[in-house]
Amino acid sequence: MLATSYTLSETTSLPFTEAVERVRSELQAEGFGVLCAIDVQATLKEKLGIDGEPYTILGACNPPLAHAALEAEPELGARLPCNVIVYRRDGNTHVSAIDAERMLSLVGNEQLAPIAADVRQRLAVVVARGSGANGGP
Amino acid sequence: MLATSYTLSETTSLPFTEAVERVRSELQAEGFGVLCAIDVQATLKEKLGIDGEPYTILGACNPPLAHAALEAEPELGARLPCNVIVYRRDGNTHVSAIDAERMLSLVGNEQLAPIAADVRQRLAVVVARGSGANGGP
Repeated sequence: MLATSYTLSETTSLPFTEAVERVRSELQAEGFGVLCAIDVQATLKEKLGIDGEPYTILGACNPPLAHAALEAEPELGARLPCNVIVYRRDGNTHVSAIDAERMLSLVGNEQLAPIAADVRQRLAVVVARGSGANGGP
Repeated sequence: MLATSYTLSETTSLPFTEAVERVRSELQAEGFGVLCAIDVQATLKEKLGIDGEPYTILGACNPPLAHAALEAEPELGARLPCNVIVYRRDGNTHVSAIDAERMLSLVGNEQLAPIAADVRQRLAVVVARGSGANGGP
């Protein structure tokens, strides 16, 4: 798994739609609901007439962890939900999740550290399994 | 306006619902569509049975700026859309937007700097006018 400065990422040969379905299933298994799903390709086509490649943003929320995080840091909704993205580029499908620990390092609230570590670990599993890099297909 | 380590924020005596309406109107005026709206209070009630105060996350997208940002940084969907939050706490209504420049400092892509500055300026206007701190009510 590739860790960029703000994401955990895998590249896969899975078709885009299959990767999205797998990611949704793995999110559910890790206790995350999808609170919003943004079809970036459709949005840019509709608003700007641009033909881009498939790109989906899934806004994921684990309610107990989100509640604990908001109790510790009321402004944190500005950074929620935690996104997992699936997109096509250069002939491959890319699956990435926000790196919760890197994201929350900017917030500077020590109470968030264990929550961030937990979210990071769960989303790493989602990226690995969702992309077929671990445990399948 | 208060700048935290990751948000631009105002506190207002406006009722919650009025603040949300004002923020939505100001987002539109600044060229942002609302791609998702998350009722945090309702979500935590439904999932955890917790009675919290009103809290809404608006996921805002300015299509030309989002497109330019994604061209420069394909992974950036992990941090989009840009959130504006409205919530009640301590008898006041709070309006905050993500600070796009702080958020993107972690990404480390210089091409994003002018886009981040533009988004930050627009969302500062939304927070100021949406909270009634500037230009009304």
